[in-house]
Amino acid sequence: MPTDGAQQWTDVDVFRVPMASPEDVSQLQDLIDKGQLRAEEIQGIIAQTEGTGYARGYTSLCMQLVLSQALGISTEAVFERIPMMMIGLCGGLMSPHYTIFSRRSVPAPAQPPPDKRLTVGIANTRQLLPEEYGRSVQVQLVSEAVTAAIAAAGIADLEDVHCVEIKCPAMTPSRIQAAQDRGATVISSNLGQASSCSKAASALGIGVALGEIPVDQISDAVINTDRELYTHRGSVSAGGEQSACRVLVMGNSATSISPYRVGHGVMQDQLDISGIHQALHTAGLTATPPYTPAQQAQIAQVFVNCGADATPSVRDRRHTIHSDFLSGYAGIVAKAVANAVVASVVGDTMILASAGFEHQGVPGSNLVAAIVRV
Amino acid sequence: MPTDGAQQWTDVDVFRVPMASPEDVSQLQDLIDKGQLRAEEIQGIIAQTEGTGYARGYTSLCMQLVLSQALGISTEAVFERIPMMMIGLCGGLMSPHYTIFSRRSVPAPAQPPPDKRLTVGIANTRQLLPEEYGRSVQVQLVSEAVTAAIAAAGIADLEDVHCVEIKCPAMTPSRIQAAQDRGATVISSNLGQASSCSKAASALGIGVALGEIPVDQISDAVINTDRELYTHRGSVSAGGEQSACRVLVMGNSATSISPYRVGHGVMQDQLDISGIHQALHTAGLTATPPYTPAQQAQIAQVFVNCGADATPSVRDRRHTIHSDFLSGYAGIVAKAVANAVVASVVGDTMILASAGFEHQGVPGSNLVAAIVRV
Amino acid sequence: MPTDGAQQWTDVDVFRVPMASPEDVSQLQDLIDKGQLRAEEIQGIIAQTEGTGYARGYTSLCMQLVLSQALGISTEAVFERIPMMMIGLCGGLMSPHYTIFSRRSVPAPAQPPPDKRLTVGIANTRQLLPEEYGRSVQVQLVSEAVTAAIAAAGIADLEDVHCVEIKCPAMTPSRIQAAQDRGATVISSNLGQASSCSKAASALGIGVALGEIPVDQISDAVINTDRELYTHRGSVSAGGEQSACRVLVMGNSATSISPYRVGHGVMQDQLDISGIHQALHTAGLTATPPYTPAQQAQIAQVFVNCGADATPSVRDRRHTIHSDFLSGYAGIVAKAVANAVVASVVGDTMILASAGFEHQGVPGSNLVAAIVRV
Amino acid sequence: MPTDGAQQWTDVDVFRVPMASPEDVSQLQDLIDKGQLRAEEIQGIIAQTEGTGYARGYTSLCMQLVLSQALGISTEAVFERIPMMMIGLCGGLMSPHYTIFSRRSVPAPAQPPPDKRLTVGIANTRQLLPEEYGRSVQVQLVSEAVTAAIAAAGIADLEDVHCVEIKCPAMTPSRIQAAQDRGATVISSNLGQASSCSKAASALGIGVALGEIPVDQISDAVINTDRELYTHRGSVSAGGEQSACRVLVMGNSATSISPYRVGHGVMQDQLDISGIHQALHTAGLTATPPYTPAQQAQIAQVFVNCGADATPSVRDRRHTIHSDFLSGYAGIVAKAVANAVVASVVGDTMILASAGFEHQGVPGSNLVAAIVRV
Repeated sequence: MPTDGAQQWTDVDVFRVPMASPEDVSQLQDLIDKGQLRAEEIQGIIAQTEGTGYARGYTSLCMQLVLSQALGISTEAVFERIPMMMIGLCGGLMSPHYTIFSRRSVPAPAQPPPDKRLTVGIANTRQLLPEEYGRSVQVQLVSEAVTAAIAAAGIADLEDVHCVEIKCPAMTPSRIQAAQDRGATVISSNLGQASSCSKAASALGIGVALGEIPVDQISDAVINTDRELYTHRGSVSAGGEQSACRVLVMGNSATSISPYRVGHGVMQDQLDISGIHQALHTAGLTATPPYTPAQQAQIAQVFVNCGADATPSVRDRRHTIHSDFLSGYAGIVAKAVANAVVASVVGDTMILASAGFEHQGVPGSNLVAAIVRV
Repeated sequence: MPTDGAQQWTDVDVFRVPMASPEDVSQLQDLIDKGQLRAEEIQGIIAQTEGTGYARGYTSLCMQLVLSQALGISTEAVFERIPMMMIGLCGGLMSPHYTIFSRRSVPAPAQPPPDKRLTVGIANTRQLLPEEYGRSVQVQLVSEAVTAAIAAAGIADLEDVHCVEIKCPAMTPSRIQAAQDRGATVISSNLGQASSCSKAASALGIGVALGEIPVDQISDAVINTDRELYTHRGSVSAGGEQSACRVLVMGNSATSISPYRVGHGVMQDQLDISGIHQALHTAGLTATPPYTPAQQAQIAQVFVNCGADATPSVRDRRHTIHSDFLSGYAGIVAKAVANAVVASVVGDTMILASAGFEHQGVPGSNLVAAIVRV
Repeated sequence: MPTDGAQQWTDVDVFRVPMASPEDVSQLQDLIDKGQLRAEEIQGIIAQTEGTGYARGYTSLCMQLVLSQALGISTEAVFERIPMMMIGLCGGLMSPHYTIFSRRSVPAPAQPPPDKRLTVGIANTRQLLPEEYGRSVQVQLVSEAVTAAIAAAGIADLEDVHCVEIKCPAMTPSRIQAAQDRGATVISSNLGQASSCSKAASALGIGVALGEIPVDQISDAVINTDRELYTHRGSVSAGGEQSACRVLVMGNSATSISPYRVGHGVMQDQLDISGIHQALHTAGLTATPPYTPAQQAQIAQVFVNCGADATPSVRDRRHTIHSDFLSGYAGIVAKAVANAVVASVVGDTMILASAGFEHQGVPGSNLVAAIVRV
Repeated sequence: MPTDGAQQWTDVDVFRVPMASPEDVSQLQDLIDKGQLRAEEIQGIIAQTEGTGYARGYTSLCMQLVLSQALGISTEAVFERIPMMMIGLCGGLMSPHYTIFSRRSVPAPAQPPPDKRLTVGIANTRQLLPEEYGRSVQVQLVSEAVTAAIAAAGIADLEDVHCVEIKCPAMTPSRIQAAQDRGATVISSNLGQASSCSKAASALGIGVALGEIPVDQISDAVINTDRELYTHRGSVSAGGEQSACRVLVMGNSATSISPYRVGHGVMQDQLDISGIHQALHTAGLTATPPYTPAQQAQIAQVFVNCGADATPSVRDRRHTIHSDFLSGYAGIVAKAVANAVVASVVGDTMILASAGFEHQGVPGSNLVAAIVRV
């Protein structure tokens, strides 16, 4: 509980804007030009980009160019300062967009909000060596960074953390080479498997930081193997552009005057819409579904971490996501499916869907976080 | 109201069974072997097969071999007698399966059901010449066949027809050649476009037969162009194995003692779950959603005709179904999306999803038919 | 040299015919109807089918139905008697077709051919248990079957063997289950990896039988790991329809009066056309390339086992076969590339391309076998 | 024949360098940093990028950032000054890379080369209105621009032009809208078809400028319909980033001291390697194939415009490029096939393959241009 002064109060804003294509950062430019968003107050950007992984880098570079000019710093310095998490590969009805979080200190309000409100915090691990990816040390470093981001967000109670988004390093050929040159061994010479282990260690780090996983259960051996260990409030993706783990925490705080609240829920399987209701309910949308358009309009954004491709069936019905001829794109189709189901509840397809089965919920489940204007 | 004799009463059964692979027709064999299904009473089979179009033919051939033995007729005679409609290309959570409709005459019941019950009827057009595909003559022939199938089903009131499934001829290179050899001109030398016109004419034929489209609005010029003309109760696919249009009508009849009822609804767009509720409600599931598992267990089958790929956006949110790198498979992804949304309501992914935008509802909408055990 | 009687002489014919689609076995029917091919003399059929794996089974079933009638035996008995090796998934210019090998005993010729001529022989291993797939026992069983097939072909000198085609069992979920039920452990619960090990053991078995690999170097540990061990004359694919390994050997024999000869060569990398010349040369096409149309017309068939997807570059030039967005189909594209290069030399795209890197040549190389009318 | 002065002599250099990924422009930076390439002398860059179309823009932006710094002008000014033609979508063995053309004036040499040498020239049309795409006016404007580029290159004889590369505007939704807002009608509201017409008009413009197509045969009606009209020396692609047609001409000139020569040939079908020999021969590689490594090392670059996807068969052998399940990517596979065949002759996969059937050769043929160090 804050007791010692106005400087601890904070306001957090959320901007969700569409992209016409990966290089379209016109909405970011507009928000800055019109004074609706101050570049200095940007805490992080999470984008859903169409196209392959290369489009992620393209969008990032375009944003860096805009923010470089707005902040008067180099594009590299922008990258260091602001976590820009690009989730690539749209499928189905998914609608390319990005979400900007801004935060500023405010004086203590005359009349504080009646409940806890949205806050965000960011932190990084140190740079990881390629041979550290997917091993216990990454779990520990991520756990510490999540704890730091929670503190930065001004969140006192771990129960108030509802979503931790992480972008961690992916393995690349040159990183394997660099490790070899040092005489070190990476977790796997298969790029996909090594990157999956990097995500797995990051997810376990979230679970440890949030108290969902006892730290003494962590060892190299459990990473990406022990499916009993998982977080319910994390979503992790990997990128070759990252050399440290970038952490963005969303939660509610008693010293935030934000008009938004965040909540979370779990879809036990792909058809379990009660998990969506749960996320919205804890975020403050207490109405009974189905929601009216006015109620849907209160929903500022939904983040769903999709697990359809982690199991071969749903409620004992076989599917062909891993055997039919789009099996090479199972992750995209998994996102398309989760996006559609969540969209049918919230009335909007422009929500964020990412795919990551590594210690992010029980295999086959979806994790949902929702931000609601209260 | 039937007044003149026991022979007019009918019983209709519905069997929905899974397939382990396209050649797996073991469930059909089992039902016959165990006496639960009499081969003589089969009215039609509608299958959702994984794999490409070739798997459709494979499944069909395997079924023909089983039924050839059971009925003591040739495989060709089986094909002529029983419409076997194979909907290929599963995506996402779609679960390969088939639905068998059987029907038999029964004595007038001592205590008739309190409401109309499920009945099915089948009919064929004559064989069409390739140059007739996609032209007014096909509309007329289909309209007549639908009317015949309605009569065969014992349905007196057009309002009692809830779903008309049609498999019509697709254009093939040899058919184009045959037409040319006769000096005739096909609607398009592009196989896909010509087949699309065949589906379009079939859908218009349904609309005319059901009174949804005035017959005087039909001309060659409107086929696949006038989007104001459509049926709300039809679903059409094309196959090169067909040389006539095969029609299967589902509706309710006052002289059926079936334990099932059928209903239909329209999803105005991909997120409109009220259209699913409407179909279930008219089929007899009058409970308020969300449905309990017991209520979901009453649902025998759902047929959804998917239109996600007919529009570039949903509720003003752009999607990338036609621009991103799975755009070559937009129809599969459209089915995956509709399957997932409907499955999230009915609690089951083993439902039938087909994609056909040609005069089947307003572009972007889904047509839903549901069979419920009452 | 045969000295003891007419019954040892043999004639072998090769029929390479196109398919209009997977179910098109009209050419097989025609050859039998016209008396050009006697069903009793068919030794094996190797097909290149379009579509996914399901089309393989479809083609096989359609052939079994034709041959069941021609031979007066059941379709199952046809499958047992005649190896039908279906290579699925066409890409690029690949042209769906099948090659039929027939063989009959002939009287000793008055004037024997001046050189050794084509012969073929077939053999099977016993049925393998799923837990035997990919282990030393499979290597041994395949080695014995190859030796038996060589003897059946009437080949005395191992140097006269030029191509060994094998279809081995693939792992399936039900096979894993059956092994578990017996308390046995399969080589891998990943279906793709287990099937790859089955192919690897088969390829090693070829190498042992042909004297390319010392038998004492075989152990469970080398299977799919020691890339120094390989055959230069084998091509292996796997199918869930097989429970034994089916072997077809092509070679030249001093007691064959066939108008054909077979030869082989190695393309050291994807651009090495000298390996194609080598195969044609050893098969009897001694002309200097580029070949004239008349010389190309002598080429009855070419079999190429493709390795493009086993290495990330060709002559130090990076390619994107495993990283770009068709990476899910790397094997198909590898076949398309090899087919095109070989076709540009032989002037015909209707040749057989299969993809199998497991102990079939040095990674990145292609193995080529050619049949030439001499 | 130049008679009046040293200032008319020119030197042209060609740099072909690999890319590790779409944003990897390190080789361009290196060439400039080391003084091997002067940014001021760059005439144009043609890149073969992996990934989808978005990667094209990404590479372009990264190059613009490098050249903006090197030239001291804005990134927009770089785009206006230097044609950067990005050919996206690698398949098979294609190796991502780019080719930089530089040109500078030199004094008259004491001893002129014994033959004509490589020169390049560039020109633009004016900006086109969307309603002009694919119509006669575009043919005329392109024809004029090609003529201007030929003059800029210092080429006196049209027979000395061997390759004209054009990047023309693609249709986009916003361009259709802009035309509608002006009351104008675009050639097609289908983006793909309209862009195809833009390419078709551009190719016809090349043919007119080179004297291959009589100007009086040009009308709106022939564009993309009359396959008898084509150029043998052009390659056209379209991009939404272009609003004018960008032209780069390669040919030989009597006043060039370049160490390179350019030539061209036609592959009548996908297997016709004589067309490759023809291109190399006219470029100065007069050796008889197969070429030795030393001869292959003389080949500086090859440009091949691929037509495999324009016909359903090759030498009467059916292929499945438009019917099998990669049919959505027929253009990529067509490039993979042509790249492989040409690479097997020149010994290098890092050559440029583009797909464009519109009036670029007879359907099914490939156009080949080669640059050789003489």
